Amino acid sequence: VSEENILGRLDDVIVSRKGAPLGESYVAMLLQGDESKVLKKIGEESVELVIAIRDKNKQSIIHEAADLWFHSLVALARHNITGQEVLNELNRRFGVSGYEEKESRSKNQ
Amino acid sequence: VSEENILGRLDDVIVSRKGAPLGESYVAMLLQGDESKVLKKIGEESVELVIAIRDKNKQSIIHEAADLWFHSLVALARHNITGQEVLNELNRRFGVSGYEEKESRSKNQ
Amino acid sequence: VSEENILGRLDDVIVSRKGAPLGESYVAMLLQGDESKVLKKIGEESVELVIAIRDKNKQSIIHEAADLWFHSLVALARHNITGQEVLNELNRRFGVSGYEEKESRSKNQ
Amino acid sequence: VSEENILGRLDDVIVSRKGAPLGESYVAMLLQGDESKVLKKIGEESVELVIAIRDKNKQSIIHEAADLWFHSLVALARHNITGQEVLNELNRRFGVSGYEEKESRSKNQ
Repeated sequence: VSEENILGRLDDVIVSRKGAPLGESYVAMLLQGDESKVLKKIGEESVELVIAIRDKNKQSIIHEAADLWFHSLVALARHNITGQEVLNELNRRFGVSGYEEKESRSKNQ
Repeated sequence: VSEENILGRLDDVIVSRKGAPLGESYVAMLLQGDESKVLKKIGEESVELVIAIRDKNKQSIIHEAADLWFHSLVALARHNITGQEVLNELNRRFGVSGYEEKESRSKNQ
Repeated sequence: VSEENILGRLDDVIVSRKGAPLGESYVAMLLQGDESKVLKKIGEESVELVIAIRDKNKQSIIHEAADLWFHSLVALARHNITGQEVLNELNRRFGVSGYEEKESRSKNQ
Repeated sequence: VSEENILGRLDDVIVSRKGAPLGESYVAMLLQGDESKVLKKIGEESVELVIAIRDKNKQSIIHEAADLWFHSLVALARHNITGQEVLNELNRRFGVSGYEEKESRSKNQ
């Protein structure tokens, strides 16, 4: 399965949960409940990714990165933003003069 | 440009910086320097994403999500893990019984 | 009650939970269970503090700062470090040439 | 030096920087500049504390905990909240039925 299908499908699944009954769906709770719940998950999953990386556990690293990306996609969906828009932004940075050069400037300020 | 191309190209650019001279490239510094540098960026970018979401600033949300995904890709590249592997993990969760159901169980423990 | 008493008493309470039966005490679980649990809380509480600050909600700010400090004290207690040692470090920075000057140098590197 | 003096003095130093010239003082920059700067530091220092704990490096743990507490004090000072108010909240939790019991209930929801 290509990345396009995976992220696109993921976005579709997430959006479909916007109207799902609360209590039956973890994603519905994150989408419809208090926004702080999904934001707290972003903080929690970031730390879990850092721990997995520090432990050099490849399977955990992949697992926690997927969790972090997933929860950030859910948070974005609350604001009607898709994963494709994030990819387009990454592409824009590479398409012009490149992330590398832009970042190198902005980070040294 | 499809997501596949974007993430694949991003992985390629990151990997190409593994041998780049330090000091000329922000990505080379993150890949070759002390690992805590890129991990700290993950903590920092998570908070920036949370702030952007709280501010309901759509352009900032996309920008900060791109920063968070980019820095997590760099951290993964230090362990020879690609964005495709993260997508495959997300696909695996959806391909069987779905993230939704699995998560709903694991999160309620 | 003076701060000394508060932090000292908090350390005492935390240490007393090191031998408490699991399942009866939240602190005992954080002290005796997998370390990632209390570390995840640090990530989560950091984000909650950021949200409270962004919301300019004074009661929430105090509440979330207390949560963050508390969970960091529990994490430190797993390594036999007390809040007093953290305060001593803060005092040391002020006692010599001051945090201000040291920080101003180290952060601009 | 007692904790009371340390935290009280720290609060005094931070408040004194509210009017200090920007560019000469790291704390003045955090107090007077864009709020996201000090919030990003909270995210960054949280991750540094997690890394230090994972590395079981006692000196680093104390150092990073001090950094995290310090930056949270600065963020609170922007909203005219002192470290004493955070300690009072911690004391309140212990003074009634205790953090332990309250937390144990709220975290299991």
